[in-house]
Amino acid sequence: MSESDREARRLAWVYLSRVVEGPCAALSALIESVGVVEAARAVRECALPEVLRGPTELRRGIDRAEKDVAHIERLGGRVVTPDDAEWPAWRMLGLGQLDPAQDADAAVPLVLWVRGRRSLLEATERSIAVVGARCSTGYGNHATGEIAGELAARGWTVVSGAAFGIDGMAHRAALGVGGVTIAVLACGPDRPYPVQHDHLLAEIAEAGLVVTEYPPGTSVRKHYFLARNRLIAALADGVVVVEAGIRSGARNTVKWCRRLGRPAMAVPGPITSAASVGCHRMIREGEAFIVTRADDILDEAGPLRLSLPGAVPANPEDNLSGDEALVFAALPGAGARLPRALAADTGLPMAVLRATLSGLEIAGLVGCDGSGWYRTVSPSTSTAAIVADHDRHR
Amino acid sequence: MSESDREARRLAWVYLSRVVEGPCAALSALIESVGVVEAARAVRECALPEVLRGPTELRRGIDRAEKDVAHIERLGGRVVTPDDAEWPAWRMLGLGQLDPAQDADAAVPLVLWVRGRRSLLEATERSIAVVGARCSTGYGNHATGEIAGELAARGWTVVSGAAFGIDGMAHRAALGVGGVTIAVLACGPDRPYPVQHDHLLAEIAEAGLVVTEYPPGTSVRKHYFLARNRLIAALADGVVVVEAGIRSGARNTVKWCRRLGRPAMAVPGPITSAASVGCHRMIREGEAFIVTRADDILDEAGPLRLSLPGAVPANPEDNLSGDEALVFAALPGAGARLPRALAADTGLPMAVLRATLSGLEIAGLVGCDGSGWYRTVSPSTSTAAIVADHDRHR
Repeated sequence: MSESDREARRLAWVYLSRVVEGPCAALSALIESVGVVEAARAVRECALPEVLRGPTELRRGIDRAEKDVAHIERLGGRVVTPDDAEWPAWRMLGLGQLDPAQDADAAVPLVLWVRGRRSLLEATERSIAVVGARCSTGYGNHATGEIAGELAARGWTVVSGAAFGIDGMAHRAALGVGGVTIAVLACGPDRPYPVQHDHLLAEIAEAGLVVTEYPPGTSVRKHYFLARNRLIAALADGVVVVEAGIRSGARNTVKWCRRLGRPAMAVPGPITSAASVGCHRMIREGEAFIVTRADDILDEAGPLRLSLPGAVPANPEDNLSGDEALVFAALPGAGARLPRALAADTGLPMAVLRATLSGLEIAGLVGCDGSGWYRTVSPSTSTAAIVADHDRHR
Repeated sequence: MSESDREARRLAWVYLSRVVEGPCAALSALIESVGVVEAARAVRECALPEVLRGPTELRRGIDRAEKDVAHIERLGGRVVTPDDAEWPAWRMLGLGQLDPAQDADAAVPLVLWVRGRRSLLEATERSIAVVGARCSTGYGNHATGEIAGELAARGWTVVSGAAFGIDGMAHRAALGVGGVTIAVLACGPDRPYPVQHDHLLAEIAEAGLVVTEYPPGTSVRKHYFLARNRLIAALADGVVVVEAGIRSGARNTVKWCRRLGRPAMAVPGPITSAASVGCHRMIREGEAFIVTRADDILDEAGPLRLSLPGAVPANPEDNLSGDEALVFAALPGAGARLPRALAADTGLPMAVLRATLSGLEIAGLVGCDGSGWYRTVSPSTSTAAIVADHDRHR
């Protein structure tokens, strides 16, 4: 792709991001079918199917993509599009495969507005979302500090929503141990929300990342929090809820997490505390696993571990069992296959398939590009070759 | 049976109870095969299979059955044998069907030494065990008070072990609301244990029941607590653990509960509290359901509810579904069938079958006597007749 083509695509993504403000499954479908540049042209000219006229009507006349890019760069940030190397493509796969008829928000973000120096791809390689009540208790804050601090100290990125209470505590605990944390906002990257967390967000942007799909200048809206929650779930290997009232937004994040086939977890608390009622209910109703410490969380959400006591095995795939073995076997020796074909072959539900592919990818056994998933090792490859292969594909 | 036969059987049960002190599966098998009077004679004369010589050797020469009966009666108590009307036969069924090869304690008690005015059968008709850590916290005591108090206030008997901490709190909460509570001891009925609960045990004997399978004068032994735990589980519709350390005896009670096919439940607490670690682990490992209030507990352990919104149905069994419908259908229109035959017919595991029969019995649809389980209603019986039938069989 030429540099000018690349730039045209980039501006098209950014333009569309401002037009729809948030996820839009119909627009994502159009982009997939005609390409992003053509989709942007169609939106501008209102040469659109009926379903896309409403969502684009209000702002399709606003074309300030170049200014938006300049604006985020002045803030020390950048816009990350699906064309960029740091786009966390495999994390987004699941979102694109949800049924948009069930939920209009079930779409891949068009772009991500990012503040912070780290690569988004690397920062989300091993990450856990820790979320919960705004009105947290001393107990909840303490529990969050213990859990998020331990996860961060062990090299896991802590993803949260920068809200008061549990969210803020989770970010602070990660920062406190020198770990990586990602704040996902429901407003533009230039809008500290809540405003009292202005300083905290600046710290997160310094040591980790502040991420949002809303363009600069966008204020929070109630609906945006729900769409934001799906992004928290998408960017993590699992979601842990520490304290949630009976009508907590955390339950919405858990719903997304489960739809994406990733483990949802909840921390128990005193039965006498209203702030733990939502957690207990989610555990009781089978919506979340009970977890009480970082070890429990990594047991549920951690990567497939190639446990290598002593010797390094010549064929790491020999250590695979169950779904991992099944999926690995269904991948071709050369070339790639699409998830739907793999699901059909293995008989696994898509959610399970995705989770399994993620595990295999983290273990360095498979990779993913535009043509689908492929093996990064062959049965006869030595471990040294795997590592090299693995690095090459990052 | 003549009065003298009845008395001979009674003294035989009591004699054997002192000889073996606690459960003895081999002796139960002998009694089942030759009858209790003949078994007592065989023990006295040491005309025994090898397996029974050891367990009876020490005390087979001690025959003070009449004195023991007089002793418990002086204490205002009584001995209840399997021949007595108040023997909770169907609760004991499960114990008799466990595999004694797995656990020598897996046997029905020979007799129960009882203090208190209530009928043991009636007091255990609707009962929940609430047990937990001796070293309870203020939180655990409070939670126990709430839960046991609510259960007792709603007419459920609270069964526990009279120990320090959670057990004592459970009894006190039931007494506090004027409810019924049963203390199951690991020593003779005349031995207050722990001695500091002397007064509490007297109150329990006054308002509820103090029950043990150990004859008067028996001191606690470590092993007796484990056998006692099985009796707590057997006498209740389910076991609730409030606070348990990592090596709590409550886990042993939960094990018995699960073997008996009844629901085991645990109350969560702060993850920062060592006293809740055992509860969280049991929930996490699927050994216990999480419960936070009496409603949760009755959802798990409560009787089959014939929900009758508005009109009373002519055929209550029409409301049955799943296992209940299956088991009810497998019962003959006239006469009775044994559990093993029902299990073979329905294909249900014994534990599930027992739980299902219990539910049907509490709902007044089936009954049980020496010949097995029978229907108390026929498809054409009116509800009035069911109630009459039900009362007659109580």
